[in-house]
Amino acid sequence: MSTPLFDTVCFIGIGHIGASLAKAIRQHGLARRLLAVDASATAREVALELGIVDSVDSDPAHAVPDADLVVVCTPVGAIESVGIAIAPYLRKGTIVTDVGSVKMAVVRDLGPSIPEGVHFIPGHPIAGTENSGPASGLADLFKGRWQILTPLPGTDEKALKKLTTLWKTIGAQVECMEPQHHDRVLAITSHLPHLIAYTIVGTATDLETDLSQEVIKFSASGFRDFTRIAASDPVMWRDIFLNNREAVLEVIQRFTEDLTQLQRAIRWGEGDILEQKFATTRAVRRAIIDAKQA
Amino acid sequence: MSTPLFDTVCFIGIGHIGASLAKAIRQHGLARRLLAVDASATAREVALELGIVDSVDSDPAHAVPDADLVVVCTPVGAIESVGIAIAPYLRKGTIVTDVGSVKMAVVRDLGPSIPEGVHFIPGHPIAGTENSGPASGLADLFKGRWQILTPLPGTDEKALKKLTTLWKTIGAQVECMEPQHHDRVLAITSHLPHLIAYTIVGTATDLETDLSQEVIKFSASGFRDFTRIAASDPVMWRDIFLNNREAVLEVIQRFTEDLTQLQRAIRWGEGDILEQKFATTRAVRRAIIDAKQA
Repeated sequence: MSTPLFDTVCFIGIGHIGASLAKAIRQHGLARRLLAVDASATAREVALELGIVDSVDSDPAHAVPDADLVVVCTPVGAIESVGIAIAPYLRKGTIVTDVGSVKMAVVRDLGPSIPEGVHFIPGHPIAGTENSGPASGLADLFKGRWQILTPLPGTDEKALKKLTTLWKTIGAQVECMEPQHHDRVLAITSHLPHLIAYTIVGTATDLETDLSQEVIKFSASGFRDFTRIAASDPVMWRDIFLNNREAVLEVIQRFTEDLTQLQRAIRWGEGDILEQKFATTRAVRRAIIDAKQA
Repeated sequence: MSTPLFDTVCFIGIGHIGASLAKAIRQHGLARRLLAVDASATAREVALELGIVDSVDSDPAHAVPDADLVVVCTPVGAIESVGIAIAPYLRKGTIVTDVGSVKMAVVRDLGPSIPEGVHFIPGHPIAGTENSGPASGLADLFKGRWQILTPLPGTDEKALKKLTTLWKTIGAQVECMEPQHHDRVLAITSHLPHLIAYTIVGTATDLETDLSQEVIKFSASGFRDFTRIAASDPVMWRDIFLNNREAVLEVIQRFTEDLTQLQRAIRWGEGDILEQKFATTRAVRRAIIDAKQA
């Protein structure tokens, strides 16, 4: 057997994404040993029972010193304290990455804790389902999907190449970009859609009881497409919105202007404006199908 | 072979829903003969070539007189002129129904044309995909889905029972309600979700060119769920919004208030409001899964 890419990978937080990555790494023989640190006893038990990792711990002091790759998979709001907790145990040459949905805040909150000689390469896989917890992990979650890396100026080339190899081996396409650019792109592709979905599902459930039961019954008419993403983890999404405030507020503003335009066209019976707007969006769907991201 | 439920079914408009219903009726042997009237030569050719119906025509005068069931499957905006065009050829005892996504406007626009002795029973199947045209028809589109009927006061019980039997045989669950109630329920479950999806896809495509290409690339992060329903037929949706104006404007107003509340919470960093709102919407997803409409 050839030497695996990494000796020991330590996950800080073993939820949906952490477990999926652990399963993929295991499937492709990319590490000799997988460890997980998680504050939740349930998550630790499940991860161990399902054999997702080889050993679990609640204390980073017992797991981090062995790792040559540390993957932080906690909600973004917890990442500053994670950095402080793991910093004393990181050894020179280790790569630290994360899977957070915002990148400027991760650089701001985790960056300062990373010791000299440790390679910090923030990342974000554009994949996931609405499910949470280690039991929902899927080995092929990242297959055909994008992994964005936002290396900082002066990042060690060898470390970046090694991390890129890991993601490519498990089937992802890797793209590097600036943290700020990442946050702008994700504000429109992910953060706004989730906020809108949460909003519309909330609006529907606030209706009088009789109507809101019919909303469930007749959800196949469009509504159910929103409920899937509105079932995503509440804490994770709270942290995303609080940590990408400026970019999210900007796209909400644009969205509201566009909605107001359509609202006005409906009020005044301006069918030509509606038809013309609706016709342009079909092309976008086709482009997504062509890009194999449908 | 037993006598089928209907002798001759005539579809006025043979697009996605018309073709799906024709295929389902054929599959279950519910009619001896299927006819289609459509203004589009392409639709007629495709429907005939694929054997979806037995014969096609551009003139209702040639097809409607034979029918004991007429199903109007045009966009809602065309339904008034369809009524005027078919009225002279409807014979006593024939059932006329439709599949329009609004029901008050259908009663208003089609009702007055229906002659004495013809049974007019408006309907709306809660099913469909984002595709258009007869080639996209699916025989099992209505299986496990709801068919709403909005019979008017004094509707013939036998005719209503016969139409109900048709829908149940092809796998749908049938529910009767008032046209006005239907339009309110659909405004929130279908019309608002489609408007929001059209809006957000429009907002994204209006971004600078470099960003809008990345929107496609990284669409798996939430955005793509909206593009599917924003790929629906533009004319059909224009007509829906123009014909359910009051109910749609009311739910847009509620939605905007709710979005503004979340926007404000993001701006002021009120994480507890966000988390609490996001937590309630998970339950709705579970209810939809339990109701087997996911």
